[in-house]
Amino acid sequence: MKAEIMGIGTELLMGELTDTNSSWIASRLPALGIELQWVSIIGDDLPRLTEAFKNGMKRSDIIFTTGGLGPTQDDLTREAIAAAFDETSVIQQEVVDKLERYFAARGTPMPQHNLKQANLIPSAKWVVNNNGTAPGWWAERDGKIIICMPGPPGENHSMWEEQVEPELAKLIEDEVTITRNIKTMGMSEGAVDEVISEFFGIENPYLGIYSKADGIHLRVIARAKDSQSAQAMIAPVEQAIHERLGEYVWGYDDETPEQSAGKSLTEKGLTLAVMEMCTGGSLTNAITNVSNSSSYLKGGIVAFDGKALSASGVPTADLKQHGVVSQQTANVMAETVRRNLNADLGLAVTGVPGPGEFEGKPLGLAYIAVTNGEKTREMEMRLPPRQVTIKRRVPNQALIELRRLIEEIS
Amino acid sequence: MKAEIMGIGTELLMGELTDTNSSWIASRLPALGIELQWVSIIGDDLPRLTEAFKNGMKRSDIIFTTGGLGPTQDDLTREAIAAAFDETSVIQQEVVDKLERYFAARGTPMPQHNLKQANLIPSAKWVVNNNGTAPGWWAERDGKIIICMPGPPGENHSMWEEQVEPELAKLIEDEVTITRNIKTMGMSEGAVDEVISEFFGIENPYLGIYSKADGIHLRVIARAKDSQSAQAMIAPVEQAIHERLGEYVWGYDDETPEQSAGKSLTEKGLTLAVMEMCTGGSLTNAITNVSNSSSYLKGGIVAFDGKALSASGVPTADLKQHGVVSQQTANVMAETVRRNLNADLGLAVTGVPGPGEFEGKPLGLAYIAVTNGEKTREMEMRLPPRQVTIKRRVPNQALIELRRLIEEIS
Repeated sequence: MKAEIMGIGTELLMGELTDTNSSWIASRLPALGIELQWVSIIGDDLPRLTEAFKNGMKRSDIIFTTGGLGPTQDDLTREAIAAAFDETSVIQQEVVDKLERYFAARGTPMPQHNLKQANLIPSAKWVVNNNGTAPGWWAERDGKIIICMPGPPGENHSMWEEQVEPELAKLIEDEVTITRNIKTMGMSEGAVDEVISEFFGIENPYLGIYSKADGIHLRVIARAKDSQSAQAMIAPVEQAIHERLGEYVWGYDDETPEQSAGKSLTEKGLTLAVMEMCTGGSLTNAITNVSNSSSYLKGGIVAFDGKALSASGVPTADLKQHGVVSQQTANVMAETVRRNLNADLGLAVTGVPGPGEFEGKPLGLAYIAVTNGEKTREMEMRLPPRQVTIKRRVPNQALIELRRLIEEIS
Repeated sequence: MKAEIMGIGTELLMGELTDTNSSWIASRLPALGIELQWVSIIGDDLPRLTEAFKNGMKRSDIIFTTGGLGPTQDDLTREAIAAAFDETSVIQQEVVDKLERYFAARGTPMPQHNLKQANLIPSAKWVVNNNGTAPGWWAERDGKIIICMPGPPGENHSMWEEQVEPELAKLIEDEVTITRNIKTMGMSEGAVDEVISEFFGIENPYLGIYSKADGIHLRVIARAKDSQSAQAMIAPVEQAIHERLGEYVWGYDDETPEQSAGKSLTEKGLTLAVMEMCTGGSLTNAITNVSNSSSYLKGGIVAFDGKALSASGVPTADLKQHGVVSQQTANVMAETVRRNLNADLGLAVTGVPGPGEFEGKPLGLAYIAVTNGEKTREMEMRLPPRQVTIKRRVPNQALIELRRLIEEIS
């Protein structure tokens, strides 16, 4: 099945908003065996939208849209499909009732212009929206499908997962695609490529390699008549990756370093305290992106110089002897914050915060330490001299080291 | 002039990467008076790219592309334009020399496949790339223009600003468009709308209102024959906004709350210390997104409960009396961190960190305090009960309060 995605809304063309829906949907299509061929962003303009649907129906089997389902005059997705199909919309009383209940529950009468959200053409059926007033459309005509979802990611993501994806999976009964994403850190892309070279260049199972801020990802995609057969095709590739790269693997599929570390902390019932210099809060911020992080994170300290480190309990003698940016100081920071915040584990990073050098050391140099008071993991990093790179990559590495220490001590 | 943008690369269709270039370029077009009509994402596929260029030449005056200019076989933007124009590429020796010097400076010989980056068709000229090996193309044929830029944002943003935009400005001599973005915080969208209602619905100067995580933005766009006339059209609208909303205005144009606060701190030579509870490091992380923040930020403390606050010097008596989540505690936190880290100003936020309630208080409740030891600004916030919303919106408000205090005391 060939597909295309349309992001609909003039605000996307004005650059007021970046269309993140299309790449989100795109990332879910390979596993369904749907081949994406086009993505377009189109403004709220009836003739142009209608033309886009007509063209799309010629070149694609399925069209996904996000946006343009709201109640205002600007929202024209429904109208454009009706025009492209040459059908007339009819207001559906049961949706009017539902909308009226929605507004009543919020203590206000339904605004008259919301009525248009109850419009349906004969070739379309509703897709329920559990998170907003705009129901989706699933329209079919001459073997072609158009699936319309609302623009807000919070509404279309859940509509996709709860309703669209299960329906699509039923359509594609003759083939199943399974994806396994294996995430490594510590070996270069070239080295990973070399170690498992014989699996590249095969169409099915397909092995892709991607360099990301949290390491090298290996993605295995297998297509087969059922999921058991697809799994059986993935298994030998995954096994080889584990045998040859096992110590570098830190996570799977959509997992982030903070989720991976958080899972380990939760499983072992351990608590954590963090002291960061040179990452400006981005390490603690990453950790707290995990919903239940307040159950294991005792606290974090963000410092920029020796004075702030001293004020946070790092002995001045250590700082004087080794300098702020050193492995020894990273180790002392980890142990200090662990003890002061009464946590099981202390995690610390120190480095050159930028914009220029610090203690005569270059921007990009950083040290990581993680300790439980007995055992400590250490690491030196030399990164490109860009503050954004440092703020993104040092936390990822630190969280992976944290997870590795937890594995070592359990 | 009607324009379209093409984001080129199979990785964009696979959802491996989100195309942020197109919205970045889109946001720069209104000020040039260029009307964007289409955005497409297209894979690295020669027939499909060629078709896209042919279609684009029919419906648009100007096509902007990003991506597909690299040295590998996948990179086909140049080839597709040559095919659409029916022209033959010729290797340009001066670009070969430049590429060879680029690699020589890095101590390696130029890989043979980089040669293709020196290809040019007769209808195109080079656009210099100061940040990578891929030069851009500026192609013209039958009054239509195609401008090709490399995919990495760091390369295409600077190419745009240094070369593409100045060239475009020369083309559009008969009209100038000037945009002024005024950012407010503290009044609802409806209230802002009401206060300056007479300026809406006019085509030129156009006034748009946008609700964002850092408040309500008002964008004034004026088109005129020269920039002086356009400025004169914006002036009365901007003046009215200032007269009626002045106290709520915190920034202009592309400014972020952290840049606005950072500018105030730098101008007044003041230093800052931060203690945050409930925002998990996102406040300190935002502050350190400003390149020279290490010159004014003394440090930050991230806590999740009363114990971590006590360990950071907040008196236990205060915590017991008022609770962790209270205005009084926010005030004590701000003063404590200010004194302990020896800063001019202390900024603190406290609230319910989630996922559930805390001290019987609901997720979404937060308090902000900022103090110079004498004067303190306070604020209570009641946000939707979502951790991501809290981590994004509380820091924005806190930074705006910080800027307001600096204005009050200077």
